[in-house]
Amino acid sequence: MSAFQIINKEPDGYARRGRITTAHGVIETPCFMPVGTKATVKGLTPKQLEDEVEAQIVLANTYHLFLRPGHDLIKKLGGVHKFMGWTRPILTDSGGFQVFSLSSLRRIDEEGVTFRSPIDGSSHRLTPESSIAIQEALGADIIMAFDECTPYPATSKQALDSLELTARWAERSKQARKRSDNLLFGIVQGSTFPELRRLSLEKTVAVGFDGYALGGLSVGEGSAAMYDVVNEFGSQMPEASPRYLMGVGTPEDLLIAVDAGLDMFDCVMPTRNARNGMYFTSHGPLSIKQARFSEDPEPIDASCDCYTCRNFSRAYLRHLFMAKEILSSVLATIHNLRFYNQLMAGMRKAISCGEFQQFKGAFLADYKSLG
Amino acid sequence: MSAFQIINKEPDGYARRGRITTAHGVIETPCFMPVGTKATVKGLTPKQLEDEVEAQIVLANTYHLFLRPGHDLIKKLGGVHKFMGWTRPILTDSGGFQVFSLSSLRRIDEEGVTFRSPIDGSSHRLTPESSIAIQEALGADIIMAFDECTPYPATSKQALDSLELTARWAERSKQARKRSDNLLFGIVQGSTFPELRRLSLEKTVAVGFDGYALGGLSVGEGSAAMYDVVNEFGSQMPEASPRYLMGVGTPEDLLIAVDAGLDMFDCVMPTRNARNGMYFTSHGPLSIKQARFSEDPEPIDASCDCYTCRNFSRAYLRHLFMAKEILSSVLATIHNLRFYNQLMAGMRKAISCGEFQQFKGAFLADYKSLG
Repeated sequence: MSAFQIINKEPDGYARRGRITTAHGVIETPCFMPVGTKATVKGLTPKQLEDEVEAQIVLANTYHLFLRPGHDLIKKLGGVHKFMGWTRPILTDSGGFQVFSLSSLRRIDEEGVTFRSPIDGSSHRLTPESSIAIQEALGADIIMAFDECTPYPATSKQALDSLELTARWAERSKQARKRSDNLLFGIVQGSTFPELRRLSLEKTVAVGFDGYALGGLSVGEGSAAMYDVVNEFGSQMPEASPRYLMGVGTPEDLLIAVDAGLDMFDCVMPTRNARNGMYFTSHGPLSIKQARFSEDPEPIDASCDCYTCRNFSRAYLRHLFMAKEILSSVLATIHNLRFYNQLMAGMRKAISCGEFQQFKGAFLADYKSLG
Repeated sequence: MSAFQIINKEPDGYARRGRITTAHGVIETPCFMPVGTKATVKGLTPKQLEDEVEAQIVLANTYHLFLRPGHDLIKKLGGVHKFMGWTRPILTDSGGFQVFSLSSLRRIDEEGVTFRSPIDGSSHRLTPESSIAIQEALGADIIMAFDECTPYPATSKQALDSLELTARWAERSKQARKRSDNLLFGIVQGSTFPELRRLSLEKTVAVGFDGYALGGLSVGEGSAAMYDVVNEFGSQMPEASPRYLMGVGTPEDLLIAVDAGLDMFDCVMPTRNARNGMYFTSHGPLSIKQARFSEDPEPIDASCDCYTCRNFSRAYLRHLFMAKEILSSVLATIHNLRFYNQLMAGMRKAISCGEFQQFKGAFLADYKSLG
């Protein structure tokens, strides 16, 4: 039986509701994956992630865990689930994106990438083989092929060279796999060039994976260019496999991408913005530091059922933020992740009822983005 | 009926088990009160304080809440319990200690103290009357008389002048009280001079309070001098009232003070040290940053039943601390506060069984302090 089952499809569109079965449980899609970079979703206990957020799966970063504390240590301690006290599914990325965005002095060759650790300046190397070995040592349920995240902007020639390298690395990633208890996803690159996205998709599908991801987006190309890729290629990715849009995005982005046929998402926005005092609400983002909230007895979002909204006023949350209290980050993270998860749950339900377009329209009519 | 009932007394000593009834519930004594300076115990949700720590009461600081966000605002929002989402008892201090330890340019006169806010440099004034009014606006269950915390070291003359001022302020604090749903405690000063402690105790008892506190300790006088005061005066404080040792201390301090007849304690040590990676254990404090814990699969304390010890290895907790993750502070705070609360629960049980001395001896035999 395939690890992915489609439960419902929108009658006249691409949105679909599905279910991914992993070694650590089932994930209902469309789903959002909170980012737990260093084997912790910043500020939350696994218990809060389960009880308050109801997260189905979290993402951990191979690059960070490879550098510190090291995948061998995590393997020795029983794998990343046991290490971080999280019993539900975990996805690890391949490290490719972080090597390009966070490391200095990187040198890329056909075999892989050499780079310096930002922690202590030491030299390290990642290859498709080592990335897969690290991810399998960590023991994630869903692992990603090692790719080159094409920088933006790139010339058509650069983007072509890059996607061809990614395709060769995709094949090597697949060959490097040793465990059978995980799912391996391939990553489609090609920057904002439709013909190159198409070529990358063909090459990735030709290798054959358990799922497919759109990579290299949300890297500076802007919403319009990102939506173009998502709208053109979301539904062209293999229908029978999970489709993952990496590193995206805002609530609007998620609605548009689900509409285009995507199933899985991750983004630091709900967690990072929470630490900066930005709360997502059904009416749009809200910056709690604004003076107008200083005496406001209302919850962040009256329609939200999260722990934060059930128990605390905007005035208290503003006080915590202004006083630089840790609890500000904790309560905002609980709310934002719950908000994202409730948005995904709402989409799943709407798809089941054949009402996705109405749901999307109603949400966007109420939602005012910042700026 | 008195708000304080003694349930058991140690047959040949001063340790006693009691119960304080407040408007927000009952506190079993001896008890430790986690410090929630700015209406938050740093890093923990009220739910974690209830479920994981099982805290009976928390302390909030009048000085901090007066300066930000202001007691009028908190009153308008329904009081400090509602503001911070904590339904159990709350004690507020008088602000006296913080005016002396945190404010610059303070000027003291018979009426009160003028000082500058460390937040914005603005000038403020606290008097016995305003301190009580602020605490009653906050709506704490136990409030403290406004005192001058005698600096250490002080000459006998300085300490005498100071305790006499505190005694006059004690009377004014009592007269200033408007609510009948709280308990008002008086504070005994006198530095390390036994005759002045005795004089201050007499004067404070003469005013008459619902409970009595030993103040001005743990301010640099050292353990031996502090133990001298606690041992000599703990049992001389009115027997029928709760006895509170302010700002103390280590696990050893608490055992010694309970042995001397004290009932209530607060200290930033379990919470502040948690944020610095220091865990209390039954064998003594443990600094998680030490390299020897980097691969250690054991919990912090195998005999501890807290969330942190049930779910995480020392290796993971060290990883979180080294990576400067917020969760490091959260998990260490849960453990340390639970450890303190379990120590108090152990003392209560031992007193009930007439085995306090054995309990104290067994704990101290296992416990190795740092340094």
